[in-house]
Amino acid sequence: MKKNLLIAQSGGPTSAINASLSGIIQEAMKHSEIGEIYGAVNGIEGVLDRKIIELKSQMTSEKMFHNLEVTPAMALGSCRFRLPKLEDSEEVYNKIDEIFDEYNIGYFFYIGGNDSMDTAHKLSAYFDKKQKDIRVMGVPKTIDNDLPNTDHTPGFGSAAKYIATSMAEIIRDCEVYFLDSVTIVEIMGRNAGWLAASACLPHTIGLKAPHLIYLPEAVFDVDKFIEDVKRVQKEHKSVIVAVSEGIKLADGRYAAESMQSGMVDAFGHKYLSGVGKFLERTVADRIGCKVRSIELNVLQRCAGHVLSETDITEARKIGAHAVRFALAGETGKMVIFHRISDKPYLVRTELSDISDVANLEKTFPREWINEEGNNILPAAYDYLLPLIQGDVPYPTQNGMPAHFSFEKNYVTPNK
Amino acid sequence: MKKNLLIAQSGGPTSAINASLSGIIQEAMKHSEIGEIYGAVNGIEGVLDRKIIELKSQMTSEKMFHNLEVTPAMALGSCRFRLPKLEDSEEVYNKIDEIFDEYNIGYFFYIGGNDSMDTAHKLSAYFDKKQKDIRVMGVPKTIDNDLPNTDHTPGFGSAAKYIATSMAEIIRDCEVYFLDSVTIVEIMGRNAGWLAASACLPHTIGLKAPHLIYLPEAVFDVDKFIEDVKRVQKEHKSVIVAVSEGIKLADGRYAAESMQSGMVDAFGHKYLSGVGKFLERTVADRIGCKVRSIELNVLQRCAGHVLSETDITEARKIGAHAVRFALAGETGKMVIFHRISDKPYLVRTELSDISDVANLEKTFPREWINEEGNNILPAAYDYLLPLIQGDVPYPTQNGMPAHFSFEKNYVTPNK
Repeated sequence: MKKNLLIAQSGGPTSAINASLSGIIQEAMKHSEIGEIYGAVNGIEGVLDRKIIELKSQMTSEKMFHNLEVTPAMALGSCRFRLPKLEDSEEVYNKIDEIFDEYNIGYFFYIGGNDSMDTAHKLSAYFDKKQKDIRVMGVPKTIDNDLPNTDHTPGFGSAAKYIATSMAEIIRDCEVYFLDSVTIVEIMGRNAGWLAASACLPHTIGLKAPHLIYLPEAVFDVDKFIEDVKRVQKEHKSVIVAVSEGIKLADGRYAAESMQSGMVDAFGHKYLSGVGKFLERTVADRIGCKVRSIELNVLQRCAGHVLSETDITEARKIGAHAVRFALAGETGKMVIFHRISDKPYLVRTELSDISDVANLEKTFPREWINEEGNNILPAAYDYLLPLIQGDVPYPTQNGMPAHFSFEKNYVTPNK
Repeated sequence: MKKNLLIAQSGGPTSAINASLSGIIQEAMKHSEIGEIYGAVNGIEGVLDRKIIELKSQMTSEKMFHNLEVTPAMALGSCRFRLPKLEDSEEVYNKIDEIFDEYNIGYFFYIGGNDSMDTAHKLSAYFDKKQKDIRVMGVPKTIDNDLPNTDHTPGFGSAAKYIATSMAEIIRDCEVYFLDSVTIVEIMGRNAGWLAASACLPHTIGLKAPHLIYLPEAVFDVDKFIEDVKRVQKEHKSVIVAVSEGIKLADGRYAAESMQSGMVDAFGHKYLSGVGKFLERTVADRIGCKVRSIELNVLQRCAGHVLSETDITEARKIGAHAVRFALAGETGKMVIFHRISDKPYLVRTELSDISDVANLEKTFPREWINEEGNNILPAAYDYLLPLIQGDVPYPTQNGMPAHFSFEKNYVTPNK
């Protein structure tokens, strides 16, 4: 009997997550064992609310798949809902089971990061326990690149390319004036420094900047930071610093939080600013030169106008392979990349138990950070560079990117 | 006798200013009346310091001109130095005169915004008074689009394209969660709202967001803003706001400054944040939903990876025409664009007396803002849209933009 396939997306947006969605749909359409292809709107929450749409009939041309692939953020929407433990609320699981029965779901694909893999893991364990043949596959995505077992995650390459590109441009911008200045670029990555580390990539095209790079993986010291800046400023008047939002002090506190206690706004409320603003104020107070902080903000995860071809191609492929693995009988697995070589760049898709992945974080290797903890070593270049190669054209309308959208008409079950 | 030509750049970076530089060099190389082509490094300050480099010998291929044109910020560096009044310090003028004599300068081109046009104006008046045949031409550039007499300024189109593109992507990013949220995007433009107004362009490709747009040209009221947000949130859960950094209250104060008095950091220093952070805190205090502010920051003026073809082509052309006008005997003029029609888009380059331009600001027309002062009317679309059309390929290395740089070897006079 034909079973239907259900896809959902979860966690934070990336520029590549829709390419994985596209890969799943394209591959699923090739296999007669799969009936309907459904999408849940807003992740597992959407499943629970029966916000389920039909996808196959909406994808009627090659061009539509391409347009979906180059559209950033999530075409199916997202959620931050994490499944509770089975023993704490079995009724949630039973409701999902009931809805899967209603829609005759035999394949469930969850595209997401750590938390999403946790949900996929719990669901697959639940169906195993009930001895139901519902194949649950995790399809990784996260700009943070912090999932274990996989060489890297889809979404990271495009984010790294955006960061490297913007950094090269910020460097040009900062160089125009002949005066002492400090520019601090705050980059995402709460506990893993992969994204901030990508700021080193302009070094591979001959740029000296960013002169200082700080990651959560090396202890941050404010006095040492000021010394570093002063030293660099003697040689290069315009000092450029890349910093991860998650840098931590020796006592384990986030640097951004450490200085906030005395900071109150006009209403008397504590004001929590990011680490960029914190370092900006510190430089203003202790050095006194021109200083600016720049937060790359959400654009580093949704800039569909700077896509890595490697990333988009791999994201599509990992989705397609997830379908093939599921059809081969696999469940409770996440598809991963195993890197065979850097030059030439070769990766193989393989499987990992989701239980090995869920809730674990892979941090940036300490041995790729210099001893002082203020820059990235060339050893990281061979790992990072292949992930940002190639460009991807995107459709435009009126000079702006023309993004793809699904019609969100919720369907009733079609058994 | 052959005279030499000197070019300098001044003011803030743009993505198109090097295309004007390229246009000047290319055109000047065609004319045997012009001898050497020099560039002053760091604007008029660089002239005073004899930081003068030779440009012609550095431009040996078509490809180099293209690479220069797509390199953002200023290939010759910049300064913020403004010439004092002649009566206040004639010695500065005499020194420039002396240096121009040393280098046998007959043509001086200053690429910049309001302040730079003021300097060009003063210099041309000085040479007129001394009855010296040194042709001084102003070549406009500013992302702010606030120079009078010209339909628009080179640099604005690419900045507007970056803003419209980023806005379309931020809209996608904000839509993924099914919850009440407010996203505030702070855009440059201290006294003129042209850039923030460009945030309306996604409306022309069917997007409802940004739902609210506030410019300095309409009085800003905090209570009204909160009402606006609440009203929009009832219809669209995710509210997106574009705001110019320079919005002002009814009493004339900048909104960003109005609430800063009670804000002190751990050192007891006043902390001046931007209007985005101010509105973010206001929403957090008075509405309490998820809220985020995004400052597009310097990338809106230096994102060479999102160039408007119209802008780069026009910037090159305005530089070339400045040379032709100077050779025809003009001096003390700025080259301007006169728009003939929107559809088809046609502009003609003409001349304006620099004295008409220097120190004046052209603001966004109030009649293109809705009566409530919280959105842009479709009447503005025909003006804005032509300026962001077309893409420009740029050279890459290792997946990043490969920017052009001059060798900065200062030369001694070659009479």
